[in-house]
Amino acid sequence: MALLSPSRRVRRTPFSDGVEAQGIKAYTVYNRMMLPTMFASVEEDYYHLKQAVQVWDVSCERQVQVQGSDALRLIQILTPRDLSKITPNRCMYIPVTDQNGGMLNDPVLLQSGPETYWISIADSDLLMWVNAIAACNGFDVEVSEPDVSPLGVQGPKSDDLMAQVFGEKIRDLRFFGCDRFEFGGFDFLIARSGYSKQGGFEIYVEGTERGMPLWHALFEAGQPLDVRAGGPNLIERVESGLLSYGNDMTSDNSPLECGLGKFVSTSQLATCFGGRAMREELETGSAQMIRAIEIDGNSVPGCDRAWPLHAGGEQVGQVTSATWSPDFKTNVAIGMVARAHWDADSEITVETPTGPRAARVCDGFWN
Amino acid sequence: MALLSPSRRVRRTPFSDGVEAQGIKAYTVYNRMMLPTMFASVEEDYYHLKQAVQVWDVSCERQVQVQGSDALRLIQILTPRDLSKITPNRCMYIPVTDQNGGMLNDPVLLQSGPETYWISIADSDLLMWVNAIAACNGFDVEVSEPDVSPLGVQGPKSDDLMAQVFGEKIRDLRFFGCDRFEFGGFDFLIARSGYSKQGGFEIYVEGTERGMPLWHALFEAGQPLDVRAGGPNLIERVESGLLSYGNDMTSDNSPLECGLGKFVSTSQLATCFGGRAMREELETGSAQMIRAIEIDGNSVPGCDRAWPLHAGGEQVGQVTSATWSPDFKTNVAIGMVARAHWDADSEITVETPTGPRAARVCDGFWN
Repeated sequence: MALLSPSRRVRRTPFSDGVEAQGIKAYTVYNRMMLPTMFASVEEDYYHLKQAVQVWDVSCERQVQVQGSDALRLIQILTPRDLSKITPNRCMYIPVTDQNGGMLNDPVLLQSGPETYWISIADSDLLMWVNAIAACNGFDVEVSEPDVSPLGVQGPKSDDLMAQVFGEKIRDLRFFGCDRFEFGGFDFLIARSGYSKQGGFEIYVEGTERGMPLWHALFEAGQPLDVRAGGPNLIERVESGLLSYGNDMTSDNSPLECGLGKFVSTSQLATCFGGRAMREELETGSAQMIRAIEIDGNSVPGCDRAWPLHAGGEQVGQVTSATWSPDFKTNVAIGMVARAHWDADSEITVETPTGPRAARVCDGFWN
Repeated sequence: MALLSPSRRVRRTPFSDGVEAQGIKAYTVYNRMMLPTMFASVEEDYYHLKQAVQVWDVSCERQVQVQGSDALRLIQILTPRDLSKITPNRCMYIPVTDQNGGMLNDPVLLQSGPETYWISIADSDLLMWVNAIAACNGFDVEVSEPDVSPLGVQGPKSDDLMAQVFGEKIRDLRFFGCDRFEFGGFDFLIARSGYSKQGGFEIYVEGTERGMPLWHALFEAGQPLDVRAGGPNLIERVESGLLSYGNDMTSDNSPLECGLGKFVSTSQLATCFGGRAMREELETGSAQMIRAIEIDGNSVPGCDRAWPLHAGGEQVGQVTSATWSPDFKTNVAIGMVARAHWDADSEITVETPTGPRAARVCDGFWN
């Protein structure tokens, strides 16, 4: 691995001082912001995440704030998901599509206040898309990126840690539920969500100045729980089938191809961006689909580019995330597979940088 | 410095194999793509750039291609610069502004074919902005990111190297002129431009498969010239006053504040995004302006965040890029300075992470 050069353009976060004090070893850059990826080692961080509790600086999940009387009307045309059931106590995962039905982002939508919504984004400047649509259509909204930085608490002991800092009532929050909980005299918006399947929360920290006091409180309260700093863990996320925008899907892919069909409401296809393309795909069936893929042999190299999938002498897809899984003792992977080969147990070949490997389609992810 | 984790999301380029073979030590991430920043050391790369010739993988300067009968009409509303004089033989630096006159990007515009334009972007997903505006207004255009990756040739011996690979005629290309030149049976679009003031070219490599053959040819022909791999060099760019979007300016800044007033045509302000705000700023005068700043003392630490500028007990601006200059034997910096303090020789204090430093506004950059 090469080094990452420092510059203001690759933004620090409200928690960067804490991340550095915890011995950060590697970052990625996400929404032009530092995202910690490794503290001890990817493998050690993985074991710890599955056993204890970690605090994650996921500030890079920036918020596109849409505020005003037309806010929900604007957001509804961005996504094929029906938003009529959104409430301040429920967040929603919403595929965002362009005019061709290609994925522009796969954010989580929250209602943070009256006529105020946060689109908590994956790695693409969705602010530009939303702002342009607002500007061109005369919607009564303000579109901005507020000073809000999510802090993740992930792992099986997350409830125990959060209850100590925010009170016992937080244990009652259900999955993708959200509410406000008090710490240090401020009510933080908190959702039971996060980018692992080990359980946990995301705290939407409003105001940079509130970041480090909360960070310190979590580490102090978490000492008996062996709390550590962590970040989205490659091994755990592939085992769990958590898609990564830019890795496993891009604007070349539709939500249906990404396995997100349950978030595509036919009632919205007449009005949302890309609705016509999605309706056609629903009628004809998707040409390819996201699949869990098991790759034979010893540990695969780092997957820093798409690896072609072959069967019968033809390319039938590509692997976009792959890693050795210590718990499942196999190489776990995520990829797009053509229809003729996407059934479980379909045997395919992956062209890795170190040569071809036998692989097969699985009927589900591992976690 | 921490490491940069590999993933498909942080994209490799057509030249990554060559960059790795040349011993890359550090990258930054720019438009979600790897941008080499250091081979030997920032200082050694700097001396070499000023004396010889370097090949730069600047693929991350992605192209937003706008193609169709309305292409120029669409691009004209994106920028306050008058584009009526664009020709296939001239590229133009165009500030792109949002509805409030804030900078969204500072790209170079090229006409790459009939009714086909490339907006060669700095570090923001301008594709989203342009695509949304096209989609909302029914312009007859296709907006896309083509497989085009710029390769820079920079340094005083650039003409000698380029003449060997593309023929002697390339020496006649004037600054910001562009034309097509043949190599290996393909006519490459080449501009006399680049992100240094040491002279050079940018080759817009169309098609990933054409990348490495050209890379190898440049290194082979350049052997007697001591050609090396390089990249935008922090020291040289600050000495030269080359602004970096995301570092020295963001959407919080207008083109006028960035010293780009000569690219703001009053004739365009009635129709371009943010025209009203820019007209008001022209009438009232800008509140702050980009300035060259000299910082006293020994080598400053890496500038990975904005450093406040103080005078008379008040904040009067911020430094956003800073480094020790071996040639000028001082710390050179770029910052925004409030009107009352922006005159040359104005004495100010910079709050660096290692303490306050005396500094002063300069009447120009160093190179």
